[in-house]
Amino acid sequence: MKSLATYSTYLENVLQQEHFPAQPANLYDPLRYFLQLGGKRMRPMLSLMACKMTGSDFEKALPTAMAVEYFHNFSLIHDDIMDAAPIRRGQATVHEKWNANIAILSGDVLLVKAYEQLAKYDPSTFHALFNIFNKTAIEVCEGQQMDMDFELRNEVSEAEYLEMIRLKTSVLLGCALQMGGLVGGATQKDAQLLYSFGEELGLAFQIQDDILDLFGDSAQVGKQVGGDVLANKKTLLSIRAKKVADSAQLQTLTALEQLQDPLLKVEQTKALYTALGARHYCEEQMKAHHQKALAALSRIEIDGAKSELEELAEFLFVRTH
Amino acid sequence: MKSLATYSTYLENVLQQEHFPAQPANLYDPLRYFLQLGGKRMRPMLSLMACKMTGSDFEKALPTAMAVEYFHNFSLIHDDIMDAAPIRRGQATVHEKWNANIAILSGDVLLVKAYEQLAKYDPSTFHALFNIFNKTAIEVCEGQQMDMDFELRNEVSEAEYLEMIRLKTSVLLGCALQMGGLVGGATQKDAQLLYSFGEELGLAFQIQDDILDLFGDSAQVGKQVGGDVLANKKTLLSIRAKKVADSAQLQTLTALEQLQDPLLKVEQTKALYTALGARHYCEEQMKAHHQKALAALSRIEIDGAKSELEELAEFLFVRTH
Repeated sequence: MKSLATYSTYLENVLQQEHFPAQPANLYDPLRYFLQLGGKRMRPMLSLMACKMTGSDFEKALPTAMAVEYFHNFSLIHDDIMDAAPIRRGQATVHEKWNANIAILSGDVLLVKAYEQLAKYDPSTFHALFNIFNKTAIEVCEGQQMDMDFELRNEVSEAEYLEMIRLKTSVLLGCALQMGGLVGGATQKDAQLLYSFGEELGLAFQIQDDILDLFGDSAQVGKQVGGDVLANKKTLLSIRAKKVADSAQLQTLTALEQLQDPLLKVEQTKALYTALGARHYCEEQMKAHHQKALAALSRIEIDGAKSELEELAEFLFVRTH
Repeated sequence: MKSLATYSTYLENVLQQEHFPAQPANLYDPLRYFLQLGGKRMRPMLSLMACKMTGSDFEKALPTAMAVEYFHNFSLIHDDIMDAAPIRRGQATVHEKWNANIAILSGDVLLVKAYEQLAKYDPSTFHALFNIFNKTAIEVCEGQQMDMDFELRNEVSEAEYLEMIRLKTSVLLGCALQMGGLVGGATQKDAQLLYSFGEELGLAFQIQDDILDLFGDSAQVGKQVGGDVLANKKTLLSIRAKKVADSAQLQTLTALEQLQDPLLKVEQTKALYTALGARHYCEEQMKAHHQKALAALSRIEIDGAKSELEELAEFLFVRTH
């Protein structure tokens, strides 16, 4: 996909430049470090693509792209503290390389820097973008809190889980697209459709993540297979499996959660999830959200130029179907 | 001071109302709790007073007042984690009552809610307020980082220390006043003078805090006397004392830092600081910044109505001179 590489190179070039003051070094060095760790840059790319789709230069959406990328990285830095995660993108997390206090504070200032990007637009555009962005920021915090709450609960319904991943992940994709579209000159209606495209794409993407964590191969996924199962993490797979299991199967699922042998635990859980149709169910759910995403895109009234986003939607899901 | 009570009652009434959603409870309960802990509400009061000074209804500045109060509480919640402080205003801190993860995330969302308040103004006012507020937010983070860095350093100069307290404390007072003035209709020049008034007042206030921590009496100050000395914290007193001490006195100061007996440590440090003229020097510095604050206020071109802010400036310092 040629255009993806174009945006990606453009964004990496921008991110290589200096964005933060030299001092205090303990505040800004962690941000320089963390933003260079890479990642797919999916969110800022969506902003640029949405802007381009309207017929404007994609560079016009650079501040919205940077705002979502900064926001995303702020949330990762703080989430990593909360999850006590030592590694992110193969490198030490900020709280691990420095300490938790520095990770809290450098995360805080990165959130402030995200807002700063949006203020580069004229007052009227800024106000409109701000309202979308701020609503999203609140939702992402709510999603993260729900995620933490769910860890301590025995039962989480499918609807609750989907709402959590919508808030934690999908709304920021929607926000990136809606803002990119608006600065390009999209109508309110088209901008809203771009948001829906992102929201549904995000849901599909997150469900795919749940599936790949267990059913992908580690080379493809870039991390150890079965991590969610080993951590007894609630996913759409585990929620669905519990829902449809009979009492004997439910006992087996509970026993598997206690199993010490990691290889055995992953293999037996995989087999049971497949037997229970949970894998198939999740794949169907993923496809349904993917289809809803494309349906929203198809309703956008601008002719042509949607193809980049369609391509991207395909590209993101090439791994499982 | 009658008007102070009026603003204070008004603000407490507003803060008693519901500002946050019910769910997720672990995200918003900590905010309800923390904002009810009280405090002087000095920052929001400054916003209201600055607005009133321009001849507008002070209620017009409520969103700026709430924005600075939310921001201040966000920074306290996160600072308390960083300082591992168990108590704030006589009650358990958020990370103590809940946990550090909840304190991080509820702090984050409170920062987002602070911005939300500013967006209540029209786009042009919002853009202007945002630029002041965001610059201030960055400075407060930088000040907090400097404060943490200083703890690990042997030497901190007076200039560095003053810059740290300016960033960590004073700029938010300036911001509260400048924003309140602007929404009331102050000219750019008068709004800038309001900022300077707040900045100098903040410096004076913070220096007073350093003095009172050691030389105040505990009933008056509302906390244990000598806390800074017992924690070997760098203050303007300790920095000045070290600077003017001869080598024998410097040895005594270093020995005092190691002293185990708390009563003896506080008494002997007090005596030495006084003998070295550090107390007198700090009092002079405090008065100088206080005077600069009043000088900025006197240059504001609006006739009358400055008296409330003058009264407040007097009120804040009634305790030591």
